[in-house]
Amino acid sequence: MVTSTTGPRRLTVPVKVRWSDIDGYGHVNNAAMFTLLEEARIATFWHGAEGATNVLQAGHGGATHTYIARQEIEYLAPIDYRAEPLQVELWLSRIGGASLDVCYEIPVGGEVAVRAMTTVVTVNPDTGRPRRITPEERAAWEPLVGEPVQVRRGR
Amino acid sequence: MVTSTTGPRRLTVPVKVRWSDIDGYGHVNNAAMFTLLEEARIATFWHGAEGATNVLQAGHGGATHTYIARQEIEYLAPIDYRAEPLQVELWLSRIGGASLDVCYEIPVGGEVAVRAMTTVVTVNPDTGRPRRITPEERAAWEPLVGEPVQVRRGR
Amino acid sequence: MVTSTTGPRRLTVPVKVRWSDIDGYGHVNNAAMFTLLEEARIATFWHGAEGATNVLQAGHGGATHTYIARQEIEYLAPIDYRAEPLQVELWLSRIGGASLDVCYEIPVGGEVAVRAMTTVVTVNPDTGRPRRITPEERAAWEPLVGEPVQVRRGR
Amino acid sequence: MVTSTTGPRRLTVPVKVRWSDIDGYGHVNNAAMFTLLEEARIATFWHGAEGATNVLQAGHGGATHTYIARQEIEYLAPIDYRAEPLQVELWLSRIGGASLDVCYEIPVGGEVAVRAMTTVVTVNPDTGRPRRITPEERAAWEPLVGEPVQVRRGR
Repeated sequence: MVTSTTGPRRLTVPVKVRWSDIDGYGHVNNAAMFTLLEEARIATFWHGAEGATNVLQAGHGGATHTYIARQEIEYLAPIDYRAEPLQVELWLSRIGGASLDVCYEIPVGGEVAVRAMTTVVTVNPDTGRPRRITPEERAAWEPLVGEPVQVRRGR
Repeated sequence: MVTSTTGPRRLTVPVKVRWSDIDGYGHVNNAAMFTLLEEARIATFWHGAEGATNVLQAGHGGATHTYIARQEIEYLAPIDYRAEPLQVELWLSRIGGASLDVCYEIPVGGEVAVRAMTTVVTVNPDTGRPRRITPEERAAWEPLVGEPVQVRRGR
Repeated sequence: MVTSTTGPRRLTVPVKVRWSDIDGYGHVNNAAMFTLLEEARIATFWHGAEGATNVLQAGHGGATHTYIARQEIEYLAPIDYRAEPLQVELWLSRIGGASLDVCYEIPVGGEVAVRAMTTVVTVNPDTGRPRRITPEERAAWEPLVGEPVQVRRGR
Repeated sequence: MVTSTTGPRRLTVPVKVRWSDIDGYGHVNNAAMFTLLEEARIATFWHGAEGATNVLQAGHGGATHTYIARQEIEYLAPIDYRAEPLQVELWLSRIGGASLDVCYEIPVGGEVAVRAMTTVVTVNPDTGRPRRITPEERAAWEPLVGEPVQVRRGR
């Protein structure tokens, strides 16, 4: 396992594990991990929280919907319930015409426990079709662009 | 999008969408989709249900735990709430020493709405370490081995 | 604990426990139990499934929304993960002007493991206000009306 | 609806709504509300967080398990997704031999949106049986005891 190093382009987003995220094996369930990543993503991009990157009027009834086109994840170590929030490291590896690739690492105890990537599409809620990322959004997000996360792929 | 074709090596596993899987956009949430895949996987491999492949004494207190090492998913079309279960098509693309790659497609209305892959590791619950797949397990699962699912990767 | 007796007015609705309903104690989580009851309720009342009582065009975009006004639950025995669905017994104890009281018992191994009650309100989605239960709905549901479930209250 | 008044015996516990708590009606799902209450309860009573009341070594592998015996809830207003956490007001209405009644109100926009009560039982994880509340626990919790929450009951 690789020691986590937080580069200049990474945000660190606190996300609280819930007791109901733990499954019968005593660790955060594999699907619940995507909910934790979703909360980190929303805290970064959606309007509501304070921050230079929170430029999307998304959510129920918002001017933009954010659909997920694809995801990849690698689980390197189980995560237990804990009182303190996880510190999700989040950055971008690509800003396209109407989509962006969001990268994450979750360090736990000095090691990376999870690596993941999500492709988010900006959608017009009236049509359900992708809509172009605006220059203002691009300007807000470009400082976050770095190298893609290295998610191990199948043999 | 590609029309679904069920090959000879695929199982079809009914999995019910729940109302709480639907998020504020009105579709199955991206993380909830992994819970649906998990239920298809458990119905296929864990002891309890009837079937030639249900050879794992997994679950809480079971002789084997099944950990997830990695996952990939591509969402091609949103899935709405519905009364009838989804028909998850499930097969294998690899059986390794202590892990297997599970492939899925979820057809909805004649098109593939989701493609995904999960690497499952067989774990000894006493040690938390991988344990080898037995000859009996391998024999039960080999009829399911086919081509890997084609999950589109990042640009 | 009381042995379950299914009276003439009770429906029996199969609902599948999911692995992610199990929390770190190894049993169905207290909140997940309400999701199981919700699925029993939707299978009984919402259009989509076949049945004399499935008269509500509810759900996302439906002509009626069903809001929950109150709930009570008593947990008498923990419920473990299992391959076969739970058999939720469901009936009504009251049909009001714009609401109904839904009662449930979940028998497990010959004993009642859960008793619960939900007050459902029929809502006009355009106004967000209650709307009256129609004569057709009342006719469909009246055969289900029986005695209230006996949920033990605080001392 | 009643304006919220925070009495001297109430704790205020911040709990974050997640996007996946929102269901297809665009509000926090009725079952998800119990997960929010659970997180408020754990933050109050379980060891891990700092605080005079955090005296329970509960959780997976802990010396105590906390089972839920019963719950009541009244939903007075829908709760939408929001960036800032809910402020759950929490107090006790009873400390018994091996159980306690936890009361909650969730104010939103100056009104009480949710009122609820949970009976928690302290359980010995080796036997699965209730175990007595210790004098130390009682001393830690007694300052929180106040009047029972007024959850409206069925007609």
